Amino acid sequence: MPRPRPAVPSATTCHQAVGPVRHGPGAEAAFAPAAVEVRGGFWDTRREVNARTSIPQGPGLLESAGNLRNLRLAAGTDDGEFQGAYPFVDSDVYKWLEAASWQLAQAPDDALAAEVERIVSLVAGAQQPDGYLNTWFQLLKGGERYRDLRWGHELYCAGHLIQAAVAHHRATGRTELLDVAVRFADQIDSVFGLPGSGKPLDGVDGHPEVETALVELYRETGERRYLDLAGYFVDRFGHGLLGGEAYCQDRVPLREAADVEGHAVRQLYLLAAAADLATETGEAGLRTAAERLWAAMTTTKTHITGGLGAHHDEEDFGDPYELPNERAYCETCAAIASVQWSWRMALLTGGARYSDLIERTLYNGFLAGVSLDGEHWLYVNPLQVRDGHTDTGGDQSARRTRWFRCACCPPNVMRLLASLEHYLASTDTGGLQIHQYVTGRYGDDRFAVRCETDYPWHGTIALTVEEAPADGPRTLSLRIPQWCREYRVRCGETTYDQSDAPVSDGWLRLARTWAPGDRIVLELALEPRLTAADPRVDAVRGCVAIERGPLVYCLEGVDHPGGGLDDMVLDTTRPLAVKHRPDLLGGVTTVVAAGHRRHIADAGWWPYRTASATADVPPADEPLELTAIPYYAWANRQDGSMRVWLPTS
Amino acid sequence: MPRPRPAVPSATTCHQAVGPVRHGPGAEAAFAPAAVEVRGGFWDTRREVNARTSIPQGPGLLESAGNLRNLRLAAGTDDGEFQGAYPFVDSDVYKWLEAASWQLAQAPDDALAAEVERIVSLVAGAQQPDGYLNTWFQLLKGGERYRDLRWGHELYCAGHLIQAAVAHHRATGRTELLDVAVRFADQIDSVFGLPGSGKPLDGVDGHPEVETALVELYRETGERRYLDLAGYFVDRFGHGLLGGEAYCQDRVPLREAADVEGHAVRQLYLLAAAADLATETGEAGLRTAAERLWAAMTTTKTHITGGLGAHHDEEDFGDPYELPNERAYCETCAAIASVQWSWRMALLTGGARYSDLIERTLYNGFLAGVSLDGEHWLYVNPLQVRDGHTDTGGDQSARRTRWFRCACCPPNVMRLLASLEHYLASTDTGGLQIHQYVTGRYGDDRFAVRCETDYPWHGTIALTVEEAPADGPRTLSLRIPQWCREYRVRCGETTYDQSDAPVSDGWLRLARTWAPGDRIVLELALEPRLTAADPRVDAVRGCVAIERGPLVYCLEGVDHPGGGLDDMVLDTTRPLAVKHRPDLLGGVTTVVAAGHRRHIADAGWWPYRTASATADVPPADEPLELTAIPYYAWANRQDGSMRVWLPTS
Repeated sequence: MPRPRPAVPSATTCHQAVGPVRHGPGAEAAFAPAAVEVRGGFWDTRREVNARTSIPQGPGLLESAGNLRNLRLAAGTDDGEFQGAYPFVDSDVYKWLEAASWQLAQAPDDALAAEVERIVSLVAGAQQPDGYLNTWFQLLKGGERYRDLRWGHELYCAGHLIQAAVAHHRATGRTELLDVAVRFADQIDSVFGLPGSGKPLDGVDGHPEVETALVELYRETGERRYLDLAGYFVDRFGHGLLGGEAYCQDRVPLREAADVEGHAVRQLYLLAAAADLATETGEAGLRTAAERLWAAMTTTKTHITGGLGAHHDEEDFGDPYELPNERAYCETCAAIASVQWSWRMALLTGGARYSDLIERTLYNGFLAGVSLDGEHWLYVNPLQVRDGHTDTGGDQSARRTRWFRCACCPPNVMRLLASLEHYLASTDTGGLQIHQYVTGRYGDDRFAVRCETDYPWHGTIALTVEEAPADGPRTLSLRIPQWCREYRVRCGETTYDQSDAPVSDGWLRLARTWAPGDRIVLELALEPRLTAADPRVDAVRGCVAIERGPLVYCLEGVDHPGGGLDDMVLDTTRPLAVKHRPDLLGGVTTVVAAGHRRHIADAGWWPYRTASATADVPPADEPLELTAIPYYAWANRQDGSMRVWLPTS
Repeated sequence: MPRPRPAVPSATTCHQAVGPVRHGPGAEAAFAPAAVEVRGGFWDTRREVNARTSIPQGPGLLESAGNLRNLRLAAGTDDGEFQGAYPFVDSDVYKWLEAASWQLAQAPDDALAAEVERIVSLVAGAQQPDGYLNTWFQLLKGGERYRDLRWGHELYCAGHLIQAAVAHHRATGRTELLDVAVRFADQIDSVFGLPGSGKPLDGVDGHPEVETALVELYRETGERRYLDLAGYFVDRFGHGLLGGEAYCQDRVPLREAADVEGHAVRQLYLLAAAADLATETGEAGLRTAAERLWAAMTTTKTHITGGLGAHHDEEDFGDPYELPNERAYCETCAAIASVQWSWRMALLTGGARYSDLIERTLYNGFLAGVSLDGEHWLYVNPLQVRDGHTDTGGDQSARRTRWFRCACCPPNVMRLLASLEHYLASTDTGGLQIHQYVTGRYGDDRFAVRCETDYPWHGTIALTVEEAPADGPRTLSLRIPQWCREYRVRCGETTYDQSDAPVSDGWLRLARTWAPGDRIVLELALEPRLTAADPRVDAVRGCVAIERGPLVYCLEGVDHPGGGLDDMVLDTTRPLAVKHRPDLLGGVTTVVAAGHRRHIADAGWWPYRTASATADVPPADEPLELTAIPYYAWANRQDGSMRVWLPTS
């Protein structure tokens, strides 16, 4: 029989992916996620595809991949054999449930709601009487619970179950899945603890994930035990319980770590939990470590797309400044984990830089992970595909794939898109902070603004105050993106620019006593630009990237005569032109640049030559117009070559 | 009981690693390996270390890693459990036996001979009555022979056993191991064949290796069945018997392949067999394919060190021009396999370019695989180790290791060093071709020359005819290395240079009626040079490498104040200086270059900037003398950074 579920405090009836944030002693900031409704524009289109195609296709794909049958097998209601290559296949179901729940919070959908309840009941049916649930172990490893924590992913799956349950409860008010999650969390809490705690096992899961989930379960239920358990897990990484490997975040305790390392997604989920814990407990040590590691990551280990993880091998962060192009791993899940961590850092600190990285990641490294049609996916997100690329297929293909053997990314994309509005704005007692610009409504019934914009295609962001508190001034904070060098803001009759409305820590802060109907128009200059990297990024020496606003651009072979890109050179002395192409890739603004095809002398059988012999041949022979498209839209037409970084000579 | 061994024809009593070469109809060339004695100089020193340290330590390492006990377990003469992580652990023993056999052919050594016979008897004891032998399958997979050809490595191990047996027989005249090999080869021949052949199984091994071995067994025994079996195996790759994966060379038949692909060592061993078969059968199609694939590999997929294999993931060749530095895989075994393949191409065609690549590989990508002390190894051979590199340890470490879990490379190095003299010269009816320059004696009792040289440190190669046929002219062919732009040759009283003694297809051909005492002095200009890559090699854009003669150079952090290399820039306008350092790394010639440390402005948290903002700061602030050492000698002092390719601005 289910244990009684802790009473859910009324304060937690929010619909946010990251719940209401409590603040323990010592927490400096007091930012909470603000409500946002997305009502049109760029992201609304992507979310429509998510709602109409990606999410509805989920149950069919999970059925044919065996995930749902595994649940029925565990429940004893179906016949057959376990299907799936990994012990974490249940988590695909949970991520889909989370995505579908957030989707239901946006728009009623009886068919989807029925699917959700059907699958919730499959999950509930598979749960063991004491709360444990993992079909791989139940069906294939009878009785061997928690014996292979390094690779077993049991707590990882529990984490995704808990996050799905929190979403389901927040979105629908229903408690069936939350009951399952609470029972599982209690089972875990009865097993794991420090030596001397009376709990039988001192251990952590090789793949962090349960930690953020337990903090969310604490927020949702008010049950302090879950927060403590999350803290225990975070503390126990880095003490050799998993053999001391960096891969599973066990080489060094987080508070002592100098750099991000190991498997990128594992590192990022763990750091998201650290930020959650620092927020809830106010612990300065954890906050300092998280800030230090975030800076180390962005300074030396982040691709221009926001992509993270340099190595295919072990899916890990490489060395500082090791940021390859064709072998960039940049797992789609790592981009999602980065958004989740950065958002928690933004709430913890109020720092705009965290949302700068979120913006860059959302528009580039994350969004490339799903096709424009919403049914083809990339697991890895390279920054280059060479002419003559030989693709081995499989999960790590540079070609879009219908589904993966390791299908972690697609439902992860679905849940982030379905909950995207939760990552766009925050509030504190002084006002409202707009982190990302979308058409829609920001805020609540005390202080709210309407936003209209064609961002990222146009830089005009028109804000109208809809609700304003009469009791005094509030600060409306607008994030001026890190890439933006020129902006103007018109507030009522007055226009400011960067000289008289300076940005402080990334924020343009407008403090007024606002009244409904007040208008603010922010203009961000969106000139296309050429971007170079720190010279220690060896992979892009002598190259530039084209960017415009938050978008990183790339060339695709299909847009260029002959289809080859590897002999192409960009002429940096000629101006870039902007051309909006409503016909192309669902409507994109392209950037047109001047370049040429390099004449490469026949090298014979050996491609290395005395340096003076390889001086460039004058480039006049084959001038070429280069057409750059937004990186997120690549690989939507045909297989072929692609480059983000373009040689300049 | 052992089957009677085929009689060994007297013609095969040579001591070469690649045996006497027969020529079927249509074979154009008639080159055979020539006898060479190495009597001093660069390679003699390296071989001394191999003989004194590496080879003698082999049995102890194979004992502690479990390989020898596995043989005793299979023989029923020891207790315990199978030890080793891979089904190919037996091959480590066979490669060591091959190395030790070649070593015995050079110098009598009673202790080593006794060790060899002890281990040969362990191998013989482990063989099953019908000839099958693989301890992994015998001990762990009772009865499951040849069921997992993709990964089982049973024929791969058989190949190394056969090659060891051929070496043992050629070197010692003893037949114990050859008997074992013949029984196993006959067992394999009774199992594998085309459908309709009456053999039960149509298949190939996922890791080519048995094919070259069977050709050698044919050469050693005269038994044509082994040549036919090798041909059958080579033909059956690329037909989906292994699932069609490029990884195991099963995507496309060799004769139709346009490029090298998949796992590098697998590809190279298969191509060595193709060259052997083309030599023995004269089949033009196989020769054409091998020539085409060799050119594709050297033109677009070979590192400047001769290293092969761009990807850690699946240990495979990447795309054309995908030649990363820090993630160069360049497995030591791939360098060895490349030498083996190229040598067979040289014998098949007489082409000097094959020995150009052999020279480059031997002095760089291969020799870096073993430490100067002969007891520390590299499995992968990167061209860069960054400042702050985090090494995960394990087999793919960028730090030298005492032994590996997958210990394929160390005994492979031992066998190549112990048989190195077999790869240095060839003969045909017209004369003698010197492919590599070492101090020693080339040729036989009809036509022989003595060579004295300090190559590669000095470019003077002094040759004295010791034996000459009186019956007319012979051609002494000297390979002029591909890197060499200036040379002089003095022959008797006359001196020629590149203007009047032109190189034809890489060879300087001296046709004379020679007499004992005739002197030829070849002078190769050894000015240090800066080398640049084809512009499609993205990884080294804006960089040059320092080379001198056949040696590729690198910088190591330990030679530079502060130990960091990542901010270092080479000044290409200043001359390179040469400094011989007898005290350093066993005595090396260093190259000293002018450079500076780049001043890099603090990038804040984001390392990408508008291109104009990253223009170089004038370099005057921190000039620095750069000391380059030969690449083969890196990682012999302390862990730290290393670079082959040096930024120039």
